[in-house]
Amino acid sequence: MDRKEINAILEEAIALGKEAIPNGEVASYIPELSKADKNHLGLSIYTKDGRRYNMGDTDVRFTIQSISKIITLAVALEACGPEEIFAKVDVEPSGEAFNSLIDLDTTSNKPKNPMINSGALTVTSLLLNKTTFSEMRVFARKLCQDPEMDLDKAVFNSERANISRNRAIAYLLESKGIIESDVEDTLDLYTKMCSLTVTANSLANLGLTLANDGIDLSTGTRLLKTETVHMIKTIMLTCGMYDSSGEFAVHVGVPTKSGVGGGLVSTVDKEMGIGIFSPSLDEKGNCIAGRPVLEHLSKELKLHIFEWQSRIVDQVKPV
Amino acid sequence: MDRKEINAILEEAIALGKEAIPNGEVASYIPELSKADKNHLGLSIYTKDGRRYNMGDTDVRFTIQSISKIITLAVALEACGPEEIFAKVDVEPSGEAFNSLIDLDTTSNKPKNPMINSGALTVTSLLLNKTTFSEMRVFARKLCQDPEMDLDKAVFNSERANISRNRAIAYLLESKGIIESDVEDTLDLYTKMCSLTVTANSLANLGLTLANDGIDLSTGTRLLKTETVHMIKTIMLTCGMYDSSGEFAVHVGVPTKSGVGGGLVSTVDKEMGIGIFSPSLDEKGNCIAGRPVLEHLSKELKLHIFEWQSRIVDQVKPV
Amino acid sequence: MDRKEINAILEEAIALGKEAIPNGEVASYIPELSKADKNHLGLSIYTKDGRRYNMGDTDVRFTIQSISKIITLAVALEACGPEEIFAKVDVEPSGEAFNSLIDLDTTSNKPKNPMINSGALTVTSLLLNKTTFSEMRVFARKLCQDPEMDLDKAVFNSERANISRNRAIAYLLESKGIIESDVEDTLDLYTKMCSLTVTANSLANLGLTLANDGIDLSTGTRLLKTETVHMIKTIMLTCGMYDSSGEFAVHVGVPTKSGVGGGLVSTVDKEMGIGIFSPSLDEKGNCIAGRPVLEHLSKELKLHIFEWQSRIVDQVKPV
Amino acid sequence: MDRKEINAILEEAIALGKEAIPNGEVASYIPELSKADKNHLGLSIYTKDGRRYNMGDTDVRFTIQSISKIITLAVALEACGPEEIFAKVDVEPSGEAFNSLIDLDTTSNKPKNPMINSGALTVTSLLLNKTTFSEMRVFARKLCQDPEMDLDKAVFNSERANISRNRAIAYLLESKGIIESDVEDTLDLYTKMCSLTVTANSLANLGLTLANDGIDLSTGTRLLKTETVHMIKTIMLTCGMYDSSGEFAVHVGVPTKSGVGGGLVSTVDKEMGIGIFSPSLDEKGNCIAGRPVLEHLSKELKLHIFEWQSRIVDQVKPV
Repeated sequence: MDRKEINAILEEAIALGKEAIPNGEVASYIPELSKADKNHLGLSIYTKDGRRYNMGDTDVRFTIQSISKIITLAVALEACGPEEIFAKVDVEPSGEAFNSLIDLDTTSNKPKNPMINSGALTVTSLLLNKTTFSEMRVFARKLCQDPEMDLDKAVFNSERANISRNRAIAYLLESKGIIESDVEDTLDLYTKMCSLTVTANSLANLGLTLANDGIDLSTGTRLLKTETVHMIKTIMLTCGMYDSSGEFAVHVGVPTKSGVGGGLVSTVDKEMGIGIFSPSLDEKGNCIAGRPVLEHLSKELKLHIFEWQSRIVDQVKPV
Repeated sequence: MDRKEINAILEEAIALGKEAIPNGEVASYIPELSKADKNHLGLSIYTKDGRRYNMGDTDVRFTIQSISKIITLAVALEACGPEEIFAKVDVEPSGEAFNSLIDLDTTSNKPKNPMINSGALTVTSLLLNKTTFSEMRVFARKLCQDPEMDLDKAVFNSERANISRNRAIAYLLESKGIIESDVEDTLDLYTKMCSLTVTANSLANLGLTLANDGIDLSTGTRLLKTETVHMIKTIMLTCGMYDSSGEFAVHVGVPTKSGVGGGLVSTVDKEMGIGIFSPSLDEKGNCIAGRPVLEHLSKELKLHIFEWQSRIVDQVKPV
Repeated sequence: MDRKEINAILEEAIALGKEAIPNGEVASYIPELSKADKNHLGLSIYTKDGRRYNMGDTDVRFTIQSISKIITLAVALEACGPEEIFAKVDVEPSGEAFNSLIDLDTTSNKPKNPMINSGALTVTSLLLNKTTFSEMRVFARKLCQDPEMDLDKAVFNSERANISRNRAIAYLLESKGIIESDVEDTLDLYTKMCSLTVTANSLANLGLTLANDGIDLSTGTRLLKTETVHMIKTIMLTCGMYDSSGEFAVHVGVPTKSGVGGGLVSTVDKEMGIGIFSPSLDEKGNCIAGRPVLEHLSKELKLHIFEWQSRIVDQVKPV
Repeated sequence: MDRKEINAILEEAIALGKEAIPNGEVASYIPELSKADKNHLGLSIYTKDGRRYNMGDTDVRFTIQSISKIITLAVALEACGPEEIFAKVDVEPSGEAFNSLIDLDTTSNKPKNPMINSGALTVTSLLLNKTTFSEMRVFARKLCQDPEMDLDKAVFNSERANISRNRAIAYLLESKGIIESDVEDTLDLYTKMCSLTVTANSLANLGLTLANDGIDLSTGTRLLKTETVHMIKTIMLTCGMYDSSGEFAVHVGVPTKSGVGGGLVSTVDKEMGIGIFSPSLDEKGNCIAGRPVLEHLSKELKLHIFEWQSRIVDQVKPV
C-alpha cells in the first residue's frame, strides 16, 4: 500500500473522528483540563520501516495523564521485577471504572490491575526508593523520543488541588498494607507523572517503541526488555480502555491506552505506533474520536491482533 | 525445531502438569462429574502444517462443559449477526466468577460477556428459533472434526438435576427482558451443549480450526467467517479463563477456553491448536494442570500473542 | 383527647396525604395493579378501648401484597419455632430494595430478613408441609377480623404471569440449599398470600391485634403468642418500609409494614392499629400518602415508640 | 421486685457474660487497645427511681470509642438541626461492617447512618466550626455525670498512628463534597472523641440520661431536647450494634451502642440506663459478654421495647 492510499485512509479516519467529537465532553473534574480545545484532533502514525504520517493537531502539547501508567509500570517491572509487582497488583480487567474503590474493599486485597488508579498508585509506591521523578522524566522522554516532555505546572497544581479521591485510595491501600512507602510522596510522584506533556507525535513514538520490542527505532537502543514489552502490551489490550477494554479488543483489536487529557497510544505489534490527541471524552473517560479513528484504521489497514497480514507494512521480518 | 525437540518440550510440560494435579480437585457440584479420574492428563497439538503431537490421555472422552460456549457463540454470531448478539451481551471481562449474578443485578442490564453463564444462556436463547440441538451437534462435530461427539446422558441428567442456579440466572434474565425465548427450552439446549463429549484430540482440532481462520485444515472447507473467528479468539483471550483471564493472557498469552469437565482448548493464531484434558480443577474452575503445561509451551515454543516468531512452525505464510 | 379533637387531627392528616398523592405512581410492574385508582385514600384507626375512626376509602378492597409477609412470618414463627426460622433467615435490615439479589449472592448465605422477597419466600417454603393456603386464609381472616378476605384472582393471575424475578430468587435459594421444599409450590403459596384482599379497615384490625399482644380485642381470643408479636413488631420497625425503614423509624417511630397494593398497617404498641390505603407509591414502593399521614398522627397523637405518653388513649393498663 | 431479687438476676447475667468471654478477642487493630484485660466484666444499672446496681469491674476506665458517636450526633443535632445533619447522612441500617466503604462508593452519595465511621466523620465535620474538643468534653462529662472523663493519650496516639482507613474514608467523603471542613481537623476531633475514657458506671449514667428524656436525673437539668433523644434512641435501636443491630433488636429489644473499647450503653426508655464493660469482642466488634448479659436482663426484667411492663421499676409516671 503506497503513501497516497494510506493518506486517504487516514483522512477518512480523521473525518469519522471529527463527527464523534460533539458527542463527548472535555474532562471537567480538574479545572485546568477543562480549558482544552474540544475540537482538537491529531493523528500520528510511525511505522517500523520508518515512515511517519501526521494529520491534524499532532504537535499540540497536552498532559499524558493515565498513559503515564504504562511508563510507570514498565519502569517498575524492570526495577523491581514482575514477581514483586504482581505480588501487590493483579492484572485482571476490573469491569469497574478507573477510580473505583469497590473491588479493592471487598473481594480482593489487591488492586485489580495496574491501569486503574489503585493499581497505578501501588506500582508508583514501589518505585519511590528506586528512582526519582527527574529520572522517570528522562526515561519517559526516551520512550517517547520527545525531549520537551515536561511537567505542565498549571495542570499539576490543579490536580494537586483536586486529589481527594486519589488520596482516599492511597490511604486505603496503606491501611491494607499494600502501599508501604510514604503515601504523600506516592501521590506526588503519581500526579507528576500524570502531568507530563506529550503530543500525538510523541505518543506514536511510544507506540512504535512497544511495537518494536522495546527498541528505539531511530537509534537501535533497547529501552525495555522483551518480557516487559509483552506484559505491557497484553495489559494494554485487556485493561487499557477502562471498562470498555473488552469491547475495544473485539472490535479494534489493537493494544491501546487512553488518558483523560485526550491522548491515546496504540501499538500494532511489529508494525507501528499510533498516537491520537482529541480531548473530547466519552462517558468512560476515553477520547471519543479515538474509537472511530482506530476502528477505521484497524479495518482498512488490517491491524487487529488476529488479522492475517497488515497492509501498511509490506515486509515484516523478525529482528 | 524438529519433532524430537518438540516432543522433549511436551514431555517437560506434561511432567509440570502432573506435579500440579494433586493441588486441584475434580468438580463436585454435579455428582456425575465427580466420578472423573483426577490423574488423567492428555495433551494434543495439531499444527497448521499438519503435524499432530499426542501425549497421555488424549482419547479419553469427557464433557465439553463451558468450552461449548465458544461454539454456541460462533454459531450465534453467524446466525444472528454480531449486532443482535452484542445488543444483548457485553464483551467486558467481568472480574467475577463464571456463575455470578452480581453485575447483572446491579451496574448493568446486560450480561458482562458470553463466557459467563448469564451471557452464554442469553446467547443460547437467541438461537432457539434458528436451530436445534441436533444441528448444533452436527456443526460442533465439524468444528472439532470429531464425528463421535455426542450427548453424555449420565452427565446431562446429573446437570439437569442440579440446575437451580442456572435456572435462577435464566429467570432473572427473563425478568429483565434479556431472555425472550422460553426459559426452560434455553436451559435445555444450554445443558445439552455442555454435555457433549470431546477428547483432548478433538479440542486440538477445534483450536486449529480457529487458528486457521475458521477453515477445516483437513478438507479446506471454511466453517466460520473471518470476522467471527477474530471475535471468538479475542473473547477467549480476554474472558476465556474466568477471573484469571487477565493474568493468563499476561503470562501465557494464548487464547484459551476452559471447561469444568477438565478440558482446555487453545488457539495459537495461524499456527496450531492445543487440546488438554485433566479434570483436576483449581479454585477458579480451570484445569489446574493446564496452566503449567501451557506456560511451558508458551515459553519454549514462543507462543505468546506478542512473540516475534513461533519456533514450532517454521514458515508461516498467509493463505 | 375527645373524638372531635382526634377527628380534626385525622382530617389534617388526610389533607397532607392528598397533597402527596400526585408525586407518586401506581405500581406498574404487574398490569393488574396498574388499574388501581391513584386518588383513593383511606385511613382507619382502631383503638384498644374499642373506638374506631374511619376516613375516606376505608372499605375499598385491594390486595395485601407484602403485608402478607408479616402474617406468613407470624404463622411460621408459631408453627416452626423462631430457631428454625432464624437458622434460615436473618433479621438484619438490608439496606437494599425489596427484591434485591445482591446480598444473598455475596456476603451472606441467608436472606437478610423476612420482609424482603428472598426472606419471605424462604419463610413460605418452611410452611409448605405444615399448612395449606386455605388454612392460612382462615387465619389471616381472624387476624384482620375480615371474613371477606379472599384471593383476587385477576391480580393472582397477573402476578403469576410476571413472576420471573421471584422465580429467579427462589431457584437461587434452592441452589444454596436454603429452600428445600418444592420451588413452584413455594411460589404458588407466596403469590396467593400476596393476592389476598383487605381494606384499610381490616388492616387497622390487624394492627390492633398486634398492639394488643396478639389478642383479638373483639373476642378476647389469643391469636398469637406474646413472643411472636414482639418479634413481628420489632421486625416491622427495623425492616418494614424497605430501604427507608431507618428513616421512617426516626421520624415516625411506629412499626409499619407496606405493600405495593397501596396498603400500610401500623401498630402503636398497647394502644391502636392504623390501616391506610392509597395506591400511589413512592420510588421505594411505599404508599406515598402514608408517610405524611403517619408523621402527622405520630406528632399530634404522640405515637413514637419513645414518646412518654400517647394522647389518644388516656388510660393504658396492662392486661 | 426488690433489690435482692434484682441482684440475683444481675448475678445470673454476669455469670452468663463470663461464660462468653473466652469466645471473643480483645481489639487488636490498634496496639494500645490490645493491652486490655480480656477478663474484665463490669455491669452497672442506674434506674429512674434513683437506685444503682454495680457488679464487677464498674470503675475500670477504658476508652469510649464508637459510643462517642451518639454523643457527637446528639451535639450535632442540637447545634446544626436535624435537617442539616440528615441532608448529609442517612439513617438507614447499613447491613455492612462499621467501616465499610462500599455503600458510600456505589449506591449512595451519603453515608448510610451516623453510627458507621463514614457517617460519624461527616457528623463530626459539621461541628468543626461550631465547637471545640474542649467544649465537647465538658458536655460529654455532663451527659455521663463523669467529671473524670478525659483523653487517654496512649490510646489517642495509638489510634492516630493507625488512622489510614479512617483517613481514606474522610478523603473519599471530601472528594464527594460530603465533608467540606478540613479533613485532618475532622479526623483529629473524631479520634479525640473516641479516646475519651469512661467506666461502666458512667455509661449507665449516659443511658439513664437518654431514658429520662435527656434530663440529668441527679440535678433535674435538661441536657438534650426531647426530639434529639428520640432520634438518638431510635438510631441506637436500628443501627447501634453494627450489622447485628436487627437481630439484637428482635432478641434484646433495648437501644444499645457498642464501642471496640469493650463498652456498651443501653437505655431502657423511661426506666433505666445500663453500662457494661468487657473488652473481649465478638467478630462484629461488639462486646461479646454484653449479649448474654443484656438478653438475660431483657427477659427477666421485661425490658424489650414491646414488653407490657418492666418489672424493675414499679411505677412509671410521665414527668
